[in-house]
Amino acid sequence: MDKADIGVTGLATMGRNLARNFAHHGHVVAVHNRTQNRTTAFMDQHRDEGAFLAAGSVEEFVASLRRPRKAIIMVKAGAPTDAVIEELAAHMEPGDMIIDGGNAHYADTRRREAALRERGLHFVGAGISGGEEGALNGPSIMPGGAPEAYETLGPLLEDVAAKVDGTPCCVHVGPDGAGHFVKMVHNGIEYSDMQLIVESYDLLRQALGLSPQELADVFREWNRGDLESYLIEITAEVLGHTDAATGRPFVDVVVDQAEQKGTGRWTVQSALDLGVPVTGIAEAVFARALSGHPDQRTAARSLAGPQEKGAADGADLVEDVRRALYASKIVAYAQGFDQIAAASEEYGWSIDPGAMATIWRGGCIIRARFLDRIREAYEARPTLPTLLVDPTFAAALADAQDSWRRVVATAATIGVPTPGFSSALAYYDALRRDRLPAALLQGLRDYFGAHTYRRVDREGAFHTDWSGDRVERPA
Amino acid sequence: MDKADIGVTGLATMGRNLARNFAHHGHVVAVHNRTQNRTTAFMDQHRDEGAFLAAGSVEEFVASLRRPRKAIIMVKAGAPTDAVIEELAAHMEPGDMIIDGGNAHYADTRRREAALRERGLHFVGAGISGGEEGALNGPSIMPGGAPEAYETLGPLLEDVAAKVDGTPCCVHVGPDGAGHFVKMVHNGIEYSDMQLIVESYDLLRQALGLSPQELADVFREWNRGDLESYLIEITAEVLGHTDAATGRPFVDVVVDQAEQKGTGRWTVQSALDLGVPVTGIAEAVFARALSGHPDQRTAARSLAGPQEKGAADGADLVEDVRRALYASKIVAYAQGFDQIAAASEEYGWSIDPGAMATIWRGGCIIRARFLDRIREAYEARPTLPTLLVDPTFAAALADAQDSWRRVVATAATIGVPTPGFSSALAYYDALRRDRLPAALLQGLRDYFGAHTYRRVDREGAFHTDWSGDRVERPA
Repeated sequence: MDKADIGVTGLATMGRNLARNFAHHGHVVAVHNRTQNRTTAFMDQHRDEGAFLAAGSVEEFVASLRRPRKAIIMVKAGAPTDAVIEELAAHMEPGDMIIDGGNAHYADTRRREAALRERGLHFVGAGISGGEEGALNGPSIMPGGAPEAYETLGPLLEDVAAKVDGTPCCVHVGPDGAGHFVKMVHNGIEYSDMQLIVESYDLLRQALGLSPQELADVFREWNRGDLESYLIEITAEVLGHTDAATGRPFVDVVVDQAEQKGTGRWTVQSALDLGVPVTGIAEAVFARALSGHPDQRTAARSLAGPQEKGAADGADLVEDVRRALYASKIVAYAQGFDQIAAASEEYGWSIDPGAMATIWRGGCIIRARFLDRIREAYEARPTLPTLLVDPTFAAALADAQDSWRRVVATAATIGVPTPGFSSALAYYDALRRDRLPAALLQGLRDYFGAHTYRRVDREGAFHTDWSGDRVERPA
Repeated sequence: MDKADIGVTGLATMGRNLARNFAHHGHVVAVHNRTQNRTTAFMDQHRDEGAFLAAGSVEEFVASLRRPRKAIIMVKAGAPTDAVIEELAAHMEPGDMIIDGGNAHYADTRRREAALRERGLHFVGAGISGGEEGALNGPSIMPGGAPEAYETLGPLLEDVAAKVDGTPCCVHVGPDGAGHFVKMVHNGIEYSDMQLIVESYDLLRQALGLSPQELADVFREWNRGDLESYLIEITAEVLGHTDAATGRPFVDVVVDQAEQKGTGRWTVQSALDLGVPVTGIAEAVFARALSGHPDQRTAARSLAGPQEKGAADGADLVEDVRRALYASKIVAYAQGFDQIAAASEEYGWSIDPGAMATIWRGGCIIRARFLDRIREAYEARPTLPTLLVDPTFAAALADAQDSWRRVVATAATIGVPTPGFSSALAYYDALRRDRLPAALLQGLRDYFGAHTYRRVDREGAFHTDWSGDRVERPA
C-alpha cells in the first residue's frame, strides 16, 4: 500500500474507534496524534485489524493521503481544532478536504469553512453520534460542507456509518455548518428524551413505590412498543443494575447531579435567536443545571411539600406515564425539527427533514423505531408545518392526551417535578388554541412602553393613549 | 448659564423625556440629535421647562458640557451606539464620561468600558427602566462602570430617579457591564411576571367563563393584597378597556401574537452560560415565540383537546390562581436573583442583591410592594442561597402550595396552557427534593458515552464497563 484513503488525527477513544472502523471496511487509514506515543500504542494494539499508515508528523500525515486528501480531525472543540486545521491546511493542496468530526459549534464551522474555501480547500463539519460503540461499529454521521466534497467523501462515510434496512445513516446535510447544526439539535433532542425518561422513572417510583428493579421491567416492557429505542433499552439496563460494592440499586449510589457538555445549551441559545420554542430542551438543560446546585438544594430541603404523596391506581398510572412519555416525545421532536427548519431557512441550507429522521434511525443515541414514523410523515408531506399535525402523530396525541393530562395533574398534586411532561403539554395546548392570551400581553406592552399592537379587524399598528384620553390612533 | 451639568444626545421619546426630567430638577441640560430638526423641535416645545443648551454638532455638544463632562447616549443599541461613542470620545478629555442609557447587551458594555478606560474616559452602562413616563417623572436607574465615575454622576442620576420612602431608585450596581446586566435580568423577570399574569387571566376566563370586565375587577381586587404592583394595576386597566370602534372588550380585538425586543432572550442565553435555571423566563420568552407562529397555530387548531373544559368552583379557583400567581412570582424572582448572583461571581461585580430590590421598588415596570420583602430578605441574610428559603417567602410558599398544585392540575385537565405556573411548581418541587432522578441520567450518560459518575459513598469519578463485564472502575 502506498497512500491512505483517509486519515484520522486525534487518537482518543472516538478517533481510535473511527480509524479502526474505516480499516475494518477495507480502507487504508493514516493515523496521527500530536503526542506520538499514542500513535505507537494504537499501532501496537490494532495493526492487525487492517491497513494503517502511522504518521509521526503532520507533514508526514498529509503526505501519506491519496488526493484529494481527506483528513478527519477528532480533537477537542475550540482552539485545539483551529490549531490542527491550520497545521493541516499548511501542507494541503487545492481540492483537499479537512473533516471535523467533533462537536464544534456550527458558527465556528461556518467560519472555518469560509476561511478554507478562500484557500481552495474543503472543510466538512461532520456531526458524529453514537459514542465509542458507534464510532467503532457504525455511527450516525451528519456531514455539512460543499456538495462537491461529499461526492468523493460521502461513499467513505456511508461505508462506515450504521445501516438501517440497508440504508446508511449518513447523508449530505447541507452547506457549511448544516451538519454540526443538525448534530447539535440531535443532542438537544437527546437531552429532552432523557429528561422525559428520568421523569417517568421518578414519578412511578415516588407515586407507586416501585423499586428500580421493578421499574427496569416496566422499561423493558415499554421497549416492545411505540417507545422502542436505544435510550429506553439502556434505561432498563441501568435501572436493573445492582451496585456490587453495596448490593444496593446502582441508581441509588450515584450522585444525583447531572453534568452537561454544552450542546444542549447551544441548542436552546440558537433556538432563542431563531424564535423557535424548544421548551422541552430548555427544561431538560435547566433540570440538569438545577441538580448541580447542591448548596441551594440542601437549603431548600425544608420547603413544604404536599400532604398527598402517592397515587391510587398503579397499573393505570404506569400506562398513563407510558402514553405521556410518548406524547411528550412527539412534542420534543416536533420542536427540534422546527428548529432545523428555521435554521435551514435562515442560512439557506435546504435541509431535508425526512433525511435527518432517516439517518437518526441507527447508530446514534436517539435511534428509535419512532424515527421511521417521522421519516414517513415528511415523505407524505415535505412541508409539514409541525410534526404534531401529521395524521399519525395527531392521532397518537389524541389517544394519549387524557393520560398525559392525568400524569401532569398527578405529579403536581403529589409534588414530583415533571417539567418535561408539563412543558410539552402546555406547548401542545398553546399551539392548538384559537386565541392565546398574548393579546393581553400586547395590550400591557402598549400600555407601559407604547410598543403598539395590531388589530384582528384592520391592517396596521395602533397605540392607545393609555395615560391620556384613551383614544386609539394609528401608530 | 455658561456650561451644562449634563448632556443628552438622541432625542427620541426616551431621550427627550430624560432631558426634560433633568431640567425639571434644575440642572442645565445640553441636548443634541444627529438630525438637527429634532433638536429644534425639542427646543420649540420644551424651552420654557428649564435650562437647555441646544447643540448643532457633536463638537458643540461636548464643548457645552461642564467638566468632567457627562454625556448620556439615548440611541439604538448596537452599531449606532458605537458610532456615537466614537464621535463623543473624539472630543472628550480624560475624566469625562459617556453614559449609555439604552438597552445594550452587557458584553458590549464591558467591551466599550474597557476601550474607553484605555483612553482615560469613563463609560457608564446605565439600565433605565420605566418607559416614557418613567424617563420623564422618575425612572429606576441601574448604572454600572467605575465607582469614581459614580461619585460625580451618581448625585445627578439619583436626583432624577424615582423615590420610594425618600430613597432614590438608583444605586451604583457594579463595575463595567453590571448595570446593563441587572437591567437585562430586570426585563427577563418582567417577561416572567407578565406571562404569569396572562396565564391567570386566561385560565380564569376559560375555566369560569368570566368576562374581561369581570376579570378586571379580579385584578383590581388582587392589587390590594400581596400582588400589589404596577403590572397588576395596568392589567386591570387593559382588561377593563372597551374598544371604541367595536364596543367589544379591547383584549378581544388585539392580535394575539406577542412581540419581543431581545432582552428576555439575552437573559435566558446568559443564564444558560452561567448554569442558572431560569425556567420561568425561558417559558415566557418561548410562549411569546409560539404565539408568533400563525401558520403552525392555524394548522394545529384541529388537534384534540380534553372532554372537560371548565372548572367546578369559581370562588375557590380565583383564590387558588391568586396564590399560584404569588408563589410562581416568588420563584421567578428567586431565579432572576440567582442569575445576578452568578454573574456577579463570574465577573467580580460584587452586586448587592438587596440594593437591586431597593431600586426596583419604584420607577420601573416590575415595581411592586413585593420588592420590599426581597430587600428585607437580603438585609436579614445577605448570603441567602435562594429567595425561596427566606422565612417569609418559605411560609408564603407553604401557604400557597396546595392552591398552586390545584391550579396546575386544573389547567392540565381542562387544556389551558400554563407553562409559567407549571414550570415554577416543577422548579420548587425539584429544588426541595432530597434525591433527584439526575442519578439515573448520569448512569445513562456513563452507559452510552463513558461520561463517568460520582458515588454518594466515595470520592472520585467512576465508570462501569456496561458493554463488557459490568465492573465499576475508577475513571
